[in-house]
Amino acid sequence: MPAITAGEYRRRRESVVAGMEAMKLDAVCVFYPARIAYLTGFHHVPTERPIALVLGPDAYTALIVPAVEKEHAERVEGIDRLDVYFEYPGVEHPMERVGVALAEVGVQPSRVGADHDGVVPLSGYRGPTLGDVTGHRPIDAEMLIESLRRVKSEAEIECIQLSCDWAARAHRRMQDSIKTGTTEIESYAASQVETLREMMREMPGWSPRGIEAGTGLTAMFVGGRATFMPHSFIRGVGVQAGDVLSSLAAANIDGYLSELERTLVVGEPSAAQRRAFDAMLALQTRAFEEMKPGVPAAEVEMEVVRLAAELGVRDELRHHVGHAIGLEGHEAPFLDRGEDAILEPGMVFTVEPGVYYSELGGFRHSDTVVITDEGCRVMTDYPRKLDDLVVPA
Amino acid sequence: MPAITAGEYRRRRESVVAGMEAMKLDAVCVFYPARIAYLTGFHHVPTERPIALVLGPDAYTALIVPAVEKEHAERVEGIDRLDVYFEYPGVEHPMERVGVALAEVGVQPSRVGADHDGVVPLSGYRGPTLGDVTGHRPIDAEMLIESLRRVKSEAEIECIQLSCDWAARAHRRMQDSIKTGTTEIESYAASQVETLREMMREMPGWSPRGIEAGTGLTAMFVGGRATFMPHSFIRGVGVQAGDVLSSLAAANIDGYLSELERTLVVGEPSAAQRRAFDAMLALQTRAFEEMKPGVPAAEVEMEVVRLAAELGVRDELRHHVGHAIGLEGHEAPFLDRGEDAILEPGMVFTVEPGVYYSELGGFRHSDTVVITDEGCRVMTDYPRKLDDLVVPA
Repeated sequence: MPAITAGEYRRRRESVVAGMEAMKLDAVCVFYPARIAYLTGFHHVPTERPIALVLGPDAYTALIVPAVEKEHAERVEGIDRLDVYFEYPGVEHPMERVGVALAEVGVQPSRVGADHDGVVPLSGYRGPTLGDVTGHRPIDAEMLIESLRRVKSEAEIECIQLSCDWAARAHRRMQDSIKTGTTEIESYAASQVETLREMMREMPGWSPRGIEAGTGLTAMFVGGRATFMPHSFIRGVGVQAGDVLSSLAAANIDGYLSELERTLVVGEPSAAQRRAFDAMLALQTRAFEEMKPGVPAAEVEMEVVRLAAELGVRDELRHHVGHAIGLEGHEAPFLDRGEDAILEPGMVFTVEPGVYYSELGGFRHSDTVVITDEGCRVMTDYPRKLDDLVVPA
Repeated sequence: MPAITAGEYRRRRESVVAGMEAMKLDAVCVFYPARIAYLTGFHHVPTERPIALVLGPDAYTALIVPAVEKEHAERVEGIDRLDVYFEYPGVEHPMERVGVALAEVGVQPSRVGADHDGVVPLSGYRGPTLGDVTGHRPIDAEMLIESLRRVKSEAEIECIQLSCDWAARAHRRMQDSIKTGTTEIESYAASQVETLREMMREMPGWSPRGIEAGTGLTAMFVGGRATFMPHSFIRGVGVQAGDVLSSLAAANIDGYLSELERTLVVGEPSAAQRRAFDAMLALQTRAFEEMKPGVPAAEVEMEVVRLAAELGVRDELRHHVGHAIGLEGHEAPFLDRGEDAILEPGMVFTVEPGVYYSELGGFRHSDTVVITDEGCRVMTDYPRKLDDLVVPA
């Protein structure tokens, strides 16, 4: 089973420290959970309890965690100093521990970098900024880590590929079990559990990791007019003939995610549904054709927007073409007109232009795509054409 | 079905604005998703796309959202100005829109308050702080909102009570369906769907809302040694005689949550399991006895710690006694030795002291408790004694 090795985690930290030295920084503090996971393999479910990583010269690595994470953190390789505080808020604010770690590294307060000026607040957390503790607003060092995360390694691509493969299997099983008259969740819950059981059987020792771990597998859909709003909450509306369904399948492999979404139609599609579906499919195809090394990410969206205008569906767009994906379900860079990034081999994106009609519903496929040396490769192997996505009424 | 009215949302905004004026601020910017939901009823699943609320004199309310949230935001009552940008990152950074909203209110940059200095970054978001946009670090106005959130209104308590009632029903059904030899998820998935179906049938129009919406109902457990680590990820370990199981049930009612957790034992409990269970139960009972208006939250934890020392289990504690709960699963204040808050009628807490043994597993109940005029009331009506929590082997 693919996984990120301790050696790869160490090399990531060494790269950050090399960049840190180039920026003439004495240390870099990392607060954002997915970045801590990226640099150490220490995945956690974020709560109000701060967790911080401090990197110093020679890739010195200090990790500060609450007692609930002690045994979990002790298993992480390559940590030079593990500092466990009992709880948040506690008598001494955990942010003081970051100050102690920086003092041990022997930093000049004006030469401290960070990905965020203090803990990213969540769930009732409140505390001083890092600048409040050191006396200097930290230098923005977020891109030292983010620039690495943007280009996936071979091991990362293997994890994402396996995630795509399981997503496709789960989606197939789900699609085959959709029945009219039942609510969405009744329709997909059993097939989701069945695929999970298969994952546990075929991958002994498999365990989802990370912020968005959940059960490690998602295979669900929403139906009817709810699909009009791209991020609508699930409702208990039963599946009916004529419905448009919006699906999502994703699996977690060593913390890495992918995204497979399909627009399905229940029963014989209407002419209006066919038109909307075909437009959406053409937009996605255009994006695939455009994606190759050297192309600005912004240009991918602009090409799609130009085609949408030609097809007369420009006003039905509600979002950009896609986003990077990896340890997080959404990552930078984005396939967006305002994005500065240029596509590079190893970048992995969702490609998901959509058209939305208040009466008809939303039409969107999402595929996970990796940039290769010559172009791009769709990693989510699943039918895209309407005829293959009709659910019997 | 209980719900928060538009009038209550308006009164919350008026209270914040009254506090704002007392602090001599011209406006308050709100970036944290649960606080925007608290003040407007606009619940959303946070992504990299910034959403901001700007409150000005006379409770003037501006909401800035991306196009994916347009129709959703248009349904929110009491918004004076809805500003929809197309996408993040976009050609113009969405944070500029916050600057525009502030200019329209006519603020002095030195008199702008905020709950956070800019967007709370997530999923690849990157952007200027609010201070970068206005030229002044904003005044910390987080407590203007948080002090309101800490004391729940009657309508909030009704929502949380109904959440507790559904959690208890879901937990009962789940407990009754646990079978040895099956993995955790196989054991609970079907019963969870069954309770969801009941919720949809008995509460027509019910829909989960908010950041932690998910399907709107959780009823799950982890088993075996995984329970030792309080926040461990789910693994596909089958349920076996002798196992300790850690459960969690929660339901979402108009965005409000509760927490019901139980420690269950599969088959006849061992003497060591009984001792650990009894100690945990005694600690929770002591916390209930201690909780009443006027008591410092810190004192609740210290009482539990004193009893843990008497019982010889102090070294087995891994976290404080509990946290507030409402729109978020974890909220401030905390039942923690470092907490400044004093208990007040209407505060709602989880009460969940736990003892953890590396070989035996973790022992923790969590109940949701509201502070009343005289003491406290346990809202999660579910058996706490070991004899009622033994699963047949």
